[in-house]
Amino acid sequence: MGTKERVVIKLSGSLFGDNAADELKKYARMLLEISSETQPVVVAGGGNVARHYINIARGFGSDEASLDIMGIEVSRLNARLLIAALGDNAYPAVPSDLEQVSQAADGGKIVVTGGLHPGQSTNATAALIAEKVKAKKFLNATDVDGIYDSDPNKNKGAKLFKDITVKKCFELLGSENSAAGTYDLMDIVALKVIERSKIPTVVLKSDPSTIKNAIANKATGTRIIV
Amino acid sequence: MGTKERVVIKLSGSLFGDNAADELKKYARMLLEISSETQPVVVAGGGNVARHYINIARGFGSDEASLDIMGIEVSRLNARLLIAALGDNAYPAVPSDLEQVSQAADGGKIVVTGGLHPGQSTNATAALIAEKVKAKKFLNATDVDGIYDSDPNKNKGAKLFKDITVKKCFELLGSENSAAGTYDLMDIVALKVIERSKIPTVVLKSDPSTIKNAIANKATGTRIIV
Amino acid sequence: MGTKERVVIKLSGSLFGDNAADELKKYARMLLEISSETQPVVVAGGGNVARHYINIARGFGSDEASLDIMGIEVSRLNARLLIAALGDNAYPAVPSDLEQVSQAADGGKIVVTGGLHPGQSTNATAALIAEKVKAKKFLNATDVDGIYDSDPNKNKGAKLFKDITVKKCFELLGSENSAAGTYDLMDIVALKVIERSKIPTVVLKSDPSTIKNAIANKATGTRIIV
Amino acid sequence: MGTKERVVIKLSGSLFGDNAADELKKYARMLLEISSETQPVVVAGGGNVARHYINIARGFGSDEASLDIMGIEVSRLNARLLIAALGDNAYPAVPSDLEQVSQAADGGKIVVTGGLHPGQSTNATAALIAEKVKAKKFLNATDVDGIYDSDPNKNKGAKLFKDITVKKCFELLGSENSAAGTYDLMDIVALKVIERSKIPTVVLKSDPSTIKNAIANKATGTRIIV
Amino acid sequence: MGTKERVVIKLSGSLFGDNAADELKKYARMLLEISSETQPVVVAGGGNVARHYINIARGFGSDEASLDIMGIEVSRLNARLLIAALGDNAYPAVPSDLEQVSQAADGGKIVVTGGLHPGQSTNATAALIAEKVKAKKFLNATDVDGIYDSDPNKNKGAKLFKDITVKKCFELLGSENSAAGTYDLMDIVALKVIERSKIPTVVLKSDPSTIKNAIANKATGTRIIV
Amino acid sequence: MGTKERVVIKLSGSLFGDNAADELKKYARMLLEISSETQPVVVAGGGNVARHYINIARGFGSDEASLDIMGIEVSRLNARLLIAALGDNAYPAVPSDLEQVSQAADGGKIVVTGGLHPGQSTNATAALIAEKVKAKKFLNATDVDGIYDSDPNKNKGAKLFKDITVKKCFELLGSENSAAGTYDLMDIVALKVIERSKIPTVVLKSDPSTIKNAIANKATGTRIIV
Repeated sequence: MGTKERVVIKLSGSLFGDNAADELKKYARMLLEISSETQPVVVAGGGNVARHYINIARGFGSDEASLDIMGIEVSRLNARLLIAALGDNAYPAVPSDLEQVSQAADGGKIVVTGGLHPGQSTNATAALIAEKVKAKKFLNATDVDGIYDSDPNKNKGAKLFKDITVKKCFELLGSENSAAGTYDLMDIVALKVIERSKIPTVVLKSDPSTIKNAIANKATGTRIIV
Repeated sequence: MGTKERVVIKLSGSLFGDNAADELKKYARMLLEISSETQPVVVAGGGNVARHYINIARGFGSDEASLDIMGIEVSRLNARLLIAALGDNAYPAVPSDLEQVSQAADGGKIVVTGGLHPGQSTNATAALIAEKVKAKKFLNATDVDGIYDSDPNKNKGAKLFKDITVKKCFELLGSENSAAGTYDLMDIVALKVIERSKIPTVVLKSDPSTIKNAIANKATGTRIIV
Repeated sequence: MGTKERVVIKLSGSLFGDNAADELKKYARMLLEISSETQPVVVAGGGNVARHYINIARGFGSDEASLDIMGIEVSRLNARLLIAALGDNAYPAVPSDLEQVSQAADGGKIVVTGGLHPGQSTNATAALIAEKVKAKKFLNATDVDGIYDSDPNKNKGAKLFKDITVKKCFELLGSENSAAGTYDLMDIVALKVIERSKIPTVVLKSDPSTIKNAIANKATGTRIIV
Repeated sequence: MGTKERVVIKLSGSLFGDNAADELKKYARMLLEISSETQPVVVAGGGNVARHYINIARGFGSDEASLDIMGIEVSRLNARLLIAALGDNAYPAVPSDLEQVSQAADGGKIVVTGGLHPGQSTNATAALIAEKVKAKKFLNATDVDGIYDSDPNKNKGAKLFKDITVKKCFELLGSENSAAGTYDLMDIVALKVIERSKIPTVVLKSDPSTIKNAIANKATGTRIIV
Repeated sequence: MGTKERVVIKLSGSLFGDNAADELKKYARMLLEISSETQPVVVAGGGNVARHYINIARGFGSDEASLDIMGIEVSRLNARLLIAALGDNAYPAVPSDLEQVSQAADGGKIVVTGGLHPGQSTNATAALIAEKVKAKKFLNATDVDGIYDSDPNKNKGAKLFKDITVKKCFELLGSENSAAGTYDLMDIVALKVIERSKIPTVVLKSDPSTIKNAIANKATGTRIIV
Repeated sequence: MGTKERVVIKLSGSLFGDNAADELKKYARMLLEISSETQPVVVAGGGNVARHYINIARGFGSDEASLDIMGIEVSRLNARLLIAALGDNAYPAVPSDLEQVSQAADGGKIVVTGGLHPGQSTNATAALIAEKVKAKKFLNATDVDGIYDSDPNKNKGAKLFKDITVKKCFELLGSENSAAGTYDLMDIVALKVIERSKIPTVVLKSDPSTIKNAIANKATGTRIIV
């Protein structure tokens, strides 16, 4: 029990929106397939529902830390949804701190969690979880194909990295414009964790077959070199 | 501290939807006004967001008890939103069992909670909270004007009761068609609690001024006679 | 681990009274025997000790919700007693919410719990647990032989149902006199849960051999048709 | 708030038996009276109900630590009963560790607790609570008039001490016959705590007027000199 | 109660070492003095004891997340020490998440906490707490006089900033050599929080009179402009 | 799982000091070796770090119960250190009450805990744990070779007992001078627990090979006869 290698997969909150019923079925099937060889520990993001709550509460003058907590609560609801899709293959509850994640993972089932701490992105949380469960791989499944040298939505000629050093990642983040505050805050912490624990990390497009490829060590997305 | 008479107000989950930013501002103002004379303990419903999660998870074959838990989690998110709208006038956390509600109410601030237990509607939960905090009144703010002798959406001539006995309520529920299962389940428990503890109860249209009228003992909605 | 079919057994609080030492030994032996083929999840009632505390506290003017909590605490003490009788065959703690029940059951041992929530009978709680652990059967072991068409203590000619529909159960409850308030409250919720999740249910006389027969699908007590 | 001097009162479990309805009313009235000048922190014992559960479970071969936990649970039920009798004058929940006792006491109301830890008598627990809340007095209300030089039930000429040193107490305990194991275990720990924190302690007959006298520093029972 | 303006003070773990007995007495006196006009919420660091445990566990191959948890546990022990020095003026327990901090602060006493979350420096945690309790000021009391344009230990001519923008802080951190990883990780998160919530912040030498000056808005250390 | 016989080993806090890195590596290796035949449940003491915190807090006038809590927190840090040394062979968290110990032990891994309750030495706690997990042996690993007829540090001719009755232990403690208060308090409780549950106990010098010998039933230290 619990002897398979572990992989931490961060899933974007966008999966849990209007098409969640269809999307999550596919992801559940994929997770089940890869769980024959590896133990997935999945971290769900917040997505649109989180933004709905956060925007309204921010309009009421709520402090940012409380908004973070709201986002975490929504990501945990999303985690419950994926647990429902996985049925008996999933650990039946959503762990709420690192030690609970660790104990849940010890049971050998697929573990699904959401955010853990205010002031920490689900990216950073996923990296910490990878540390704590000694994961052999951390897959950050996002809405883009990987890390680009500039914003692919604004710059048609943006180039996708196949490999990138952590140092280079920091440089890219440093050059970003400050309006993207929340975004890079999180990635800096995640990168620092990846760096300090030398966690093999891939940033890739969220898609079941892409994730399966990454598990099988096929080249896809951007590999972060530690 | 905590010496004002308490009133429990159940708010429909429909308030926490797309217009929540505007609606909750009005409700927060109303709650603040009535809190000069009474201590409100508010129970938030789940609404559309709850239905979103529940429907998808039910499609995955999730058991009903787990769906109830999802609904509770969403109602707690809704409670957080109203707490944000109330700022320092609200108890800063969402109590998660009856004893926590009781301790929170002891501090004298407006308390906002969501559902507490699977298998119990927020109506029934609100009635139990009214029991536990020895509320002088229980207002069930709904999407209709009160209790009718038949469904007002289907029957144009449906008559609104000004007063109704608990016994008559049970008869009405008993005659409903069984497809409305979840609905009457909840109301039967709520009614039993109202009956056993003789809690003065009004079922009324959710609207800040209507609620204020009910607090001031002006006739509005349907009064349940115990 | 945890792959056997589960059965939820509600045990009347009357087992935990003066003859508990003898009674529970027999029940423990029976549970052990049936656990070779099925995983029992047992819900203990409150019985006389619960009534002792509740009556006194009600005399002090305690609210009904607090009385429910007392009843729950006693049912958990009763659960500890059965756990003691089962020794290493039982999960060593008393779960206190549905998710804990679910996690305890995952370990494969016999799980024993008491009430979970104020405002919910142990019958209703047992039905919710049956939902949550996806039990294949729910046995409600009571002080009578099953469901009668009238009160067998008052009416000598009362007829025992072999099978009964949920709809018929509701009718019987509706016709009961209102003094039996607490009793039918609980059963209505339990019935609604049984109905919504189509849980095969038998109401039967609490007796080890009768329970064994019900596990073996031999006709006994009253079967509720869903 | 919380500025009155505190007194810890250990109440024997025998108060919570068949006459609890009458007895606790008197004790509640007394506690209310003394609370105008002092803040009582009450520790309830387990009594007959505890013995009922413990004896049966011991017969099942339960380990002693689990039996202690049962006794604690019963003492907490007894605490709930006294809280019910005190109504709004009592802190509404039963604290379950020393820090919770301390936080509850900070609110200024009468606090009622039961046992806290397996392996510790409610006497010893009461002494620890007296330490933690910096009580000015610890009253141990028992079924006898105080500390005797020999067992007053066996020895008609047994002499009651008006004052006794801790050292002398230890000697008396040392000379007891070993069958009384549980009893002296508890008192040794309680005495050690009293000694290390120099807590003014009186062992006295449990009776409302006797307790009031002790609060008023009138001579009654046996005073332990530290 | 709880109506005074709040100030969050991060205290370096170095205060809790060999001279803690003397140092903390002075800090307690200072905190008591400033608490007549403001409500201090103090965050204790880990210091040498934390390093002792972390270094050994890292040698055993412990993951970094578990090391963070050890550091948090030590900072909470340090918080207990300061609570002991403050006696009745302090909230009697160490809150362990943001909502507990918020509830503790509501009571009006001085609140002392340690770290809250793995992967977050006590600096960043202190900034989050300042957000959550809507502090009017955040004082980061360190072992140096404030923020320099280069390391004052290595560069004799290092210049102390009186004021510095958040943007300039990020630049300074970006130019640091990567060996100082843990250090800047933490400060980046803290800075992001300060920036998003516009929390008036001063980095200053840890010394009771310097802190008092900063509370009184006298120029001292480095003020971060938001 | 969990079917091996259990042994409870109390380790002195002195192991967790300056040489902890080397010492704990040896102890981890030994525990791993004996865990092929037995399941160790280890209780860590507090040692010098505990004394550091306790002495300072006592100087601040802290109550003794709060000091006990500090000691417990340090012993839990020490437990974390041994868990780090054991890696995947240890249960990954530190249980904080008897039922958690019991559930942790059910998983079959080596369990490491610290103190559990204020007012209870880690010796007494270890004895209670031995009761609760039905250990076949309790090894109290100390800084001396076993139990002497007088203090071996003061009396060169002090004689080591090979076997000693519980009764004789009580006599020895009774004759100790009262300055050693805390020490004997703890041992009396531990002895009472050993006596009531007839737990085979050995007091021995803390050393990996000595402990292995005791596990193998080779004569070493002092055996307490129950």
